[in-house]
Amino acid sequence: MRKLRLTVQYDGTDYAGFQIQPNAATIQGELEQTLADLLGHPVRVQAASRTDAGVHALGQVVAFETDNPIPAENLAKALDDKLPVAISAVAAHEVAGDFDPQRDARRKLYCYQILNRTVSSPFLGRYAWHVSKCLDDGAICEAGSVLLGRHDFAAFCASGSSVRSTVRTIYRLNICREGDMFRIYVEADGFLYKMARIMVGTLVEVGWGRMAPDVVGEILASGDRRQAGPTAPGCGLWLVEVSYD
Amino acid sequence: MRKLRLTVQYDGTDYAGFQIQPNAATIQGELEQTLADLLGHPVRVQAASRTDAGVHALGQVVAFETDNPIPAENLAKALDDKLPVAISAVAAHEVAGDFDPQRDARRKLYCYQILNRTVSSPFLGRYAWHVSKCLDDGAICEAGSVLLGRHDFAAFCASGSSVRSTVRTIYRLNICREGDMFRIYVEADGFLYKMARIMVGTLVEVGWGRMAPDVVGEILASGDRRQAGPTAPGCGLWLVEVSYD
Repeated sequence: MRKLRLTVQYDGTDYAGFQIQPNAATIQGELEQTLADLLGHPVRVQAASRTDAGVHALGQVVAFETDNPIPAENLAKALDDKLPVAISAVAAHEVAGDFDPQRDARRKLYCYQILNRTVSSPFLGRYAWHVSKCLDDGAICEAGSVLLGRHDFAAFCASGSSVRSTVRTIYRLNICREGDMFRIYVEADGFLYKMARIMVGTLVEVGWGRMAPDVVGEILASGDRRQAGPTAPGCGLWLVEVSYD
Repeated sequence: MRKLRLTVQYDGTDYAGFQIQPNAATIQGELEQTLADLLGHPVRVQAASRTDAGVHALGQVVAFETDNPIPAENLAKALDDKLPVAISAVAAHEVAGDFDPQRDARRKLYCYQILNRTVSSPFLGRYAWHVSKCLDDGAICEAGSVLLGRHDFAAFCASGSSVRSTVRTIYRLNICREGDMFRIYVEADGFLYKMARIMVGTLVEVGWGRMAPDVVGEILASGDRRQAGPTAPGCGLWLVEVSYD
């Protein structure tokens, strides 16, 4: 049995998230169906990250087993041709049989896009959260710096997850503005359920002055989800890259 | 009665074109319904260009009448807030009662986007025609230059239109490449039915070597639609700007 690792990109707008569900279009469902058609046997894919409804990916990593001898490169091309336009197979290669894209991931990089201007955009609205009120970049940077490093992120974890530990390490938190587009990059060794979006929702509260920057440290220390800001919408979130050893 | 001119942008992917149709989502339908809700009376909009299914707009111009005294600026903002995310109202202002956005248009600028690389893109696939085979920019430029100026474009007009004259003037035809993205800008005093897309379909035939650049002059002279290339897909076409005196 061979194991293949696949890098995929997708526009999550019209999908109910990565994870397969009955009666809903999902990324996993599309990938498994298309792979089964190509390889001639049922396929189950594992993913680095089970992205939520509406969340996009530039570098999602999935893995699956097959005994079909098709070269990895040809498979990526054939798969890309057959997948719906909203999902694209960028690359494929053979990996060790015990490779697990979620367990073996060392770092994940997410980007959150905020379109920060009065007028909305039909083109960027799919890919960014539209926030009309002008955000204070300096306050957001100040608040964000508190989150860097190793912390218990329980206050930034939505209920419904069953992880053993809520301690994670944020290696990088960059905030940049390009014209009307405001981007928050967060790289960590792992993310709790909706952690990236709760962090963004909280930083935006700071950015429009509803919360002082130093309150973010108190929220972190509290471990209490109710003290953090709301969960930012899925449309602004991008899984950019998953790194392995 | 006041007449208002409105600049709108839209992602045409999920619409059956601009023009209103029963049982299909259209840009005109969404605009008229949202305007009627806002203004409190039925509204009929006229447009500079009845873009086809899947075609996008950065600067479509529409006009309509109302006796509602709402300031134009407030209307644009309120409309933008109420329109579906795929349609955006950029600006509004009052115009003379006899303004007709189609008849009075002096120039229209379209851009056609081609994603010219092996791998498709879930994000650009909505907004560009994906052409895997490498296009010969030089051959396309050479062929395109023949189309500049005042000509009878009957060979580049799809059947189903009832215009009196098929003579149009192309003021500008720019071809540029930015990485994998190949763009053809065409500005003319007007466009025949599917003219921009048939021109692009023909230039792409030249670009991948199925047609010699100098054949385009012969096609133009023939006035015969069957000699031109296929109609390029709607997804790559953008109505960029409509100019008035």
